Amino acid sequence: MATTPNSLPGPSVRTIPDGDTRERMVCPDCGFIAYENPKVVVGSVVVSGDRFLLCRRAIEPRRGYWTLPAGYLEVNESTMAGAAREALEEASARIEIDGLLAVYDIPRISQVQVIYRARLAEPSFEPGPESLEVRLFAWEEIPWDDLAFPSVRWSLQHFKDWQRTGDERARGNPEGVGSGRPQGL
Amino acid sequence: MATTPNSLPGPSVRTIPDGDTRERMVCPDCGFIAYENPKVVVGSVVVSGDRFLLCRRAIEPRRGYWTLPAGYLEVNESTMAGAAREALEEASARIEIDGLLAVYDIPRISQVQVIYRARLAEPSFEPGPESLEVRLFAWEEIPWDDLAFPSVRWSLQHFKDWQRTGDERARGNPEGVGSGRPQGL
Repeated sequence: MATTPNSLPGPSVRTIPDGDTRERMVCPDCGFIAYENPKVVVGSVVVSGDRFLLCRRAIEPRRGYWTLPAGYLEVNESTMAGAAREALEEASARIEIDGLLAVYDIPRISQVQVIYRARLAEPSFEPGPESLEVRLFAWEEIPWDDLAFPSVRWSLQHFKDWQRTGDERARGNPEGVGSGRPQGL
Repeated sequence: MATTPNSLPGPSVRTIPDGDTRERMVCPDCGFIAYENPKVVVGSVVVSGDRFLLCRRAIEPRRGYWTLPAGYLEVNESTMAGAAREALEEASARIEIDGLLAVYDIPRISQVQVIYRARLAEPSFEPGPESLEVRLFAWEEIPWDDLAFPSVRWSLQHFKDWQRTGDERARGNPEGVGSGRPQGL
């Protein structure tokens, strides 16, 4: 069993544990095996009438850029509850979820993103600790060049596509980007 | 900071790390924080003509019961690639994926299940190491009382519903089960 030591604390030795088929990080002090798992990001495209709620990030990565209310799903939480929690944490916004908009694969960073369609349930919102600013944008005002991540753009465009076509199938990655799953399937 | 020690190796002390808001398991030897994350299960309802492919589990939990080819998504893997890999590992089956069938929340065990609709791409299949037996069942032959997990039943029923209605919206948990997300949204 070949090992690649490094100097980080905790599970810091890369090796294939007995009975396993893949390399895992193992702690040389305590023997703990840190199974790396993909992470689930939950979020929502939130509208109020015909305007879209976006949050300007107060944290890295992409501090200062605009994003959807979204973040990591917690243990023992449903994806819908997680999406609602993120809207509350990042924008102090209570939302009503209408349906599943998209499941995006970001295998490069081992993320699966579950994005819902939602509406503001109450008119009030304000920045939480992870946001510099929260605003409603008309479609024409959306700061496309200052969005934090490609999946923010995909989500907004897929929401608009859903509005235009009435096609409620969950979307996937845009064609040719990552998952191999055709958009709309 | 209150701690609850126990006798397991590795991260074995439950505490709220500085700057965090939730309890995490921390290793008293090396200080490593084990963030527990929900896990992503990927799988598919695989048909050949009008018959459904099921695998009889060779492993616990639910050894001897019938399940879909499904399992944990690996790092750097898309959900579609993961679903195809599981069909290959558990049933030696090459599949063609047609679309997203469902996203189920199982918050009690911190799982998100991403289930696809698929067809056998080649007629051959046989049990992999985690299966005792692999079989194609006509709808009327499905061993409903011997399915391994509720989500296997949900998946089969949602697939059938998709066939009957042509409604390609991704399904969620059956109403009243777990997620709070209405079926079909």
